[in-house]
Amino acid sequence: TRHRIAVIPGDGIGVEVTAEAIRVVDAVADVEWTSFDWSCQSYLDTGKMMPDDGLEQLRPFDAILLGAVGYPGVPDHISLWGLLIPIRRAFDQYVNVRPVKLLPGVQSPLRDRTAEDLQMIVVRENSEGEYSNVGGRQGLGDYEMALQTAVFTRHGVERVVRYAFELARQQNLPVCSATKSNGIVHTMPFWDEVFQDVAKEYEDVPSEQCLADALAARMVMAPQTLGVVVASNLFGDLLSDLSAAVAGGLGIAPAANLNPQRTAPSMFEAVHGSAPDIAGKGIANPVAQILTAAMMLDHLGETQAAVAIEQAIERALADPGARTPDLGGSATTRGSADAIIAAL
Amino acid sequence: TRHRIAVIPGDGIGVEVTAEAIRVVDAVADVEWTSFDWSCQSYLDTGKMMPDDGLEQLRPFDAILLGAVGYPGVPDHISLWGLLIPIRRAFDQYVNVRPVKLLPGVQSPLRDRTAEDLQMIVVRENSEGEYSNVGGRQGLGDYEMALQTAVFTRHGVERVVRYAFELARQQNLPVCSATKSNGIVHTMPFWDEVFQDVAKEYEDVPSEQCLADALAARMVMAPQTLGVVVASNLFGDLLSDLSAAVAGGLGIAPAANLNPQRTAPSMFEAVHGSAPDIAGKGIANPVAQILTAAMMLDHLGETQAAVAIEQAIERALADPGARTPDLGGSATTRGSADAIIAAL
Ligand SMILES: CC(C)[C@H](C(=O)O)[C@@H](O)C(=O)O
Ligand SMILES: CC(C)[C@H](C(=O)O)[C@@H](O)C(=O)O
Repeated sequence: TRHRIAVIPGDGIGVEVTAEAIRVVDAVADVEWTSFDWSCQSYLDTGKMMPDDGLEQLRPFDAILLGAVGYPGVPDHISLWGLLIPIRRAFDQYVNVRPVKLLPGVQSPLRDRTAEDLQMIVVRENSEGEYSNVGGRQGLGDYEMALQTAVFTRHGVERVVRYAFELARQQNLPVCSATKSNGIVHTMPFWDEVFQDVAKEYEDVPSEQCLADALAARMVMAPQTLGVVVASNLFGDLLSDLSAAVAGGLGIAPAANLNPQRTAPSMFEAVHGSAPDIAGKGIANPVAQILTAAMMLDHLGETQAAVAIEQAIERALADPGARTPDLGGSATTRGSADAIIAAL
Repeated sequence: TRHRIAVIPGDGIGVEVTAEAIRVVDAVADVEWTSFDWSCQSYLDTGKMMPDDGLEQLRPFDAILLGAVGYPGVPDHISLWGLLIPIRRAFDQYVNVRPVKLLPGVQSPLRDRTAEDLQMIVVRENSEGEYSNVGGRQGLGDYEMALQTAVFTRHGVERVVRYAFELARQQNLPVCSATKSNGIVHTMPFWDEVFQDVAKEYEDVPSEQCLADALAARMVMAPQTLGVVVASNLFGDLLSDLSAAVAGGLGIAPAANLNPQRTAPSMFEAVHGSAPDIAGKGIANPVAQILTAAMMLDHLGETQAAVAIEQAIERALADPGARTPDLGGSATTRGSADAIIAAL
């Protein structure tokens, strides 16, 4: 079947890596791409990150492939809260899945760690929590203050925790729930309670609760003890960057913003950002976005095509010539993708 | 001069490592110790983590040396919010300083990193921010929710940022401010603004602002680029555990809760917790708490004694016989401290 995908290349290296991901997907699946040039650039021209009916334009698609948004000069809270966050929320993409895996030819910054030690999946709550609209500023001068209210609902926590347990059961992995209940005393003990309730339904899945600070240390000291890590929006954000770092860097870390009930399109976007510092040089690593596109194909039921891409990446990266500078090679973005296509 | 110190050994390994820190301090300085047995154990007996006039009992002392509190069965939000957090706040210990440094004989979990690469000081806001009392729960069943409001004041942010710049200037280090302004859109951009205002007063100190997620990755990928990291209560908590991990673990990471204006006693407590899993076995690493005691002596003006302890630790650890199991050795808590005292 032909899949209809909305593409938002966005800014910086988002544009560069997304172009390569499209080429790779075209080599294995039948996709009709519709491109939307919503970005910080279009914001500077139009004053909007996307048109007023942007969400309605996206809704009919089978999925969304997003490059990255963000550009020096456009405050992040405009670029992200005018595009990325509204899409995640309006389309109820309440799970952000971020798997990491040490690929062949990629070195972990950790000493003596093998590929077996470095396989984790961060399941991040993606619709509520610390990323809230509730808050503001008050007062003047020395007496000015800013307030922000994190909002956790039972419904919201339960569904993401349940997703994590289902995934862990299917992949035969343990679940670790990361909170900070000794410091954040209202919302985090609530998360813990909901986690314990859901865990009762999955007694076959080994599970534990840990403090997020200790878990950050453990990702570095003992990553082999981790499988699925489930965490709030903010902790999932930090821990997924960290897990990507220990498994070889942001250049190879994919992500999926999922609406598991499929009541609206899911969105696929690598963990890395628009990286203005290296944008336009043709040296960005396309692997993260190509793996992200493979997650998209898997979500669309094209399991074989997804696996084929993953395997092609592993084969291609075994050759130093396919590695971009972040992996110690000198391949260009396009050259790296060419090698992956050749390996397909 | 004789210093009057309040000691709260607390729970678990807190008791064990504090006993050793006291022995080491006694070898180099004139201190009168007054011990308070406030702990989770006393909570189970009395229903209180400390007496009603606990803070008034502590106030006359020159400083407080705290082991750790926390015990399975006593919820953290009772043990910590009944003792640690009230002391930090009532005594206006608004800076939590957490330096890390790779010691001789200690291996970093990072590949190819030397002691020069691994020297960072996390300056954590310690009085407000995400650790707030403001919040609660509402609703029933599926509709239950928990809310928690982070509170940042200009006064609160300014003073800790200024502390970070002073420290950086004195130590000739760059400052990196960690926020998450693209996700936490009310409080974090406020922190950024205050940071930029203060930075103008320190144009001789190199400074930058980074996203906390990217910074977590950078601590693993490029720790040598970091000097002083200043962050909110929550981010400082996570980043200090992480910086300790990359520099060889929590067993050697000291911390100081400082009231820089000295209007009340400061409190000294290693980064690690009460570690119930290894408590009572005599294998906890005392180095973190001994280094913490050295920070206390430094704060009390006993700079020479503080330096002597640091040097003794470096000399002692060069011998594998002084290293506890977390450092790959087989020394006991007491044996490790004995070696440090012998090296003095
Ligand atoms: C025990 C806990 C409340 C505490 C904190 O988060 O402040 C601890 O993790 C620390 O870092 O001192
Ligand atoms: C850009 C930013 C808002 C975003 C987030 O924090 O969600 C990014 O860091 C991510 O991880 O997808």
